[in-house]
Amino acid sequence: MSQRYLSGVQPSGELHLGNYIGAMRHHIEAQDDAYYFIADYHALTSLGDAEALRQNVRHVAAAYLALGLDPARATFFRQSDVPEVCELTWLLSNVAAMGLLERAHSYKDKIAKGLQPKVGLFTYPILMAADILAYDSDVVPVGKDQAQHLEITRDLAIAFNALYGETFKLPRIVLGTPELVPGIDGEKMSKSYNNTLPIFTRGKALKSLVMSIKTDSKGLDEPKDPDTCTVYKLYTFVASPAEQAEMAAAYRAGGYGYGHAKLALLKKLEETFGPAYERYDALLARPDDLEDRLRVGATRARAEAQIVLGRARRACGLD
Amino acid sequence: MSQRYLSGVQPSGELHLGNYIGAMRHHIEAQDDAYYFIADYHALTSLGDAEALRQNVRHVAAAYLALGLDPARATFFRQSDVPEVCELTWLLSNVAAMGLLERAHSYKDKIAKGLQPKVGLFTYPILMAADILAYDSDVVPVGKDQAQHLEITRDLAIAFNALYGETFKLPRIVLGTPELVPGIDGEKMSKSYNNTLPIFTRGKALKSLVMSIKTDSKGLDEPKDPDTCTVYKLYTFVASPAEQAEMAAAYRAGGYGYGHAKLALLKKLEETFGPAYERYDALLARPDDLEDRLRVGATRARAEAQIVLGRARRACGLD
Repeated sequence: MSQRYLSGVQPSGELHLGNYIGAMRHHIEAQDDAYYFIADYHALTSLGDAEALRQNVRHVAAAYLALGLDPARATFFRQSDVPEVCELTWLLSNVAAMGLLERAHSYKDKIAKGLQPKVGLFTYPILMAADILAYDSDVVPVGKDQAQHLEITRDLAIAFNALYGETFKLPRIVLGTPELVPGIDGEKMSKSYNNTLPIFTRGKALKSLVMSIKTDSKGLDEPKDPDTCTVYKLYTFVASPAEQAEMAAAYRAGGYGYGHAKLALLKKLEETFGPAYERYDALLARPDDLEDRLRVGATRARAEAQIVLGRARRACGLD
Repeated sequence: MSQRYLSGVQPSGELHLGNYIGAMRHHIEAQDDAYYFIADYHALTSLGDAEALRQNVRHVAAAYLALGLDPARATFFRQSDVPEVCELTWLLSNVAAMGLLERAHSYKDKIAKGLQPKVGLFTYPILMAADILAYDSDVVPVGKDQAQHLEITRDLAIAFNALYGETFKLPRIVLGTPELVPGIDGEKMSKSYNNTLPIFTRGKALKSLVMSIKTDSKGLDEPKDPDTCTVYKLYTFVASPAEQAEMAAAYRAGGYGYGHAKLALLKKLEETFGPAYERYDALLARPDDLEDRLRVGATRARAEAQIVLGRARRACGLD
């Protein structure tokens, strides 16, 4: 039997190479029978800007579709097109001990960073649980930082099933080992560090970003160490093994400068993402088309969520 | 312009005279253009029993309808037939400061009583706010114990409107002075004190309850004080002013025993509620009829909630 794989995507604006390597390419590879949603309800916990949210959702949707996500293979939708998850959140809230959320690292971390604590930030793990349980998900791949949220999901499902009888399927957690993608300054690539290579930045703007990648000051003739070089590291994500071996050899031999390596990286980035540029632009230019594709997924996801919600409502006496 | 009046009714099982005097008769008197919902989502914060919830909802619905609530005049519905309020709860959660809920007396009181704190109990004031704001309610009559929840509703509406632009109508709070209805032991009538006169208890069972009302031990011939007597106090809620004056005079004159007063009270209770007994039984015997009547209200309420929710979704960028 096939396994239902579920993942949420943050609508956090312009996607970059780090997002692609860390998540998007895996999502696109494993898309058959998968459920992917753009987490716009979740975005409300940090964003308070309607127009920015609309734009971010469109950009993320267009990026996934342009890079090969096929709405006929994966169920790809906007979280808020399935409002059933909010109702499920309420049902789960009543079996969720306060302590369970109070112990959540991600809440404690955000508070520690000085974020003004809103209730949505606190209860978010319950919405996440609802998102997972609403589709009878089998497998939810997460990074280490999200593992506790998955434990909370399982705890809530177990508590509800214990009180009201078997209702929710327990998802399996699959811990992924995140690949460390450096930004142009050598630190972890992240929008908040302003060091990204955005996937759909192209032409002169892309070239100028690539040429500004930080390296050491070794001259053209000197031998270089590929393993400590950000340009080389980035190249490994987009080049074939043979191409990587060739560049590594050139580094070690000397007579091959960082400028050469940067141009080779630029070429591979353009080869990797270039074919998607046009599709991306076309999708953004026709928001109605974009909507149509998201609607296919929403219809399928909502029908599924209604079945699970119906079970949960009957179980607790709301029928 | 008429004012929309909204009130929630707890599905807390068998309704008693205290419920009738304190709320039901006012609801039924003021039913034109009113919205009344049976708070079954809310009941999940304290009840964990599906069958009990179903029964309680049916009893409350049948009681209101039997006592004169007309689905053509009032919008009378089950809270969970308008799941839009759960979505609105999520939207409001993200403008609700944690401190706002942490300061809520009713949460603090329940914790102090040793209730295991669940998240639903904590976030309940947001659901209540959603219930009020979803119908553009003008006036929400509340007891003193609920006044803080209404303040929270106004705070959330103001915070959302400030962040996302004018979206919610601010409801007016009308503080009611609750009438103190004594139970058969002279304490406040309350299901938890097991001292109630249930509205639909009748015949021998009702007579036996009425005859057991606690009085002092004055003999038949002695003059008695109506103002300190539970039987007389209860009589004032169901008898006409002339009847009350007559009984008070008989008390003071002597030669009128508590047994006489109890039989007079019994007669008035039967006169007040007797005509509703048959309608109540008939509604409980035909759950489909009951459903049909609640459906009328649900359809109207849901259409209204969808308009308000649509405004809120557009305001924060979920469209």
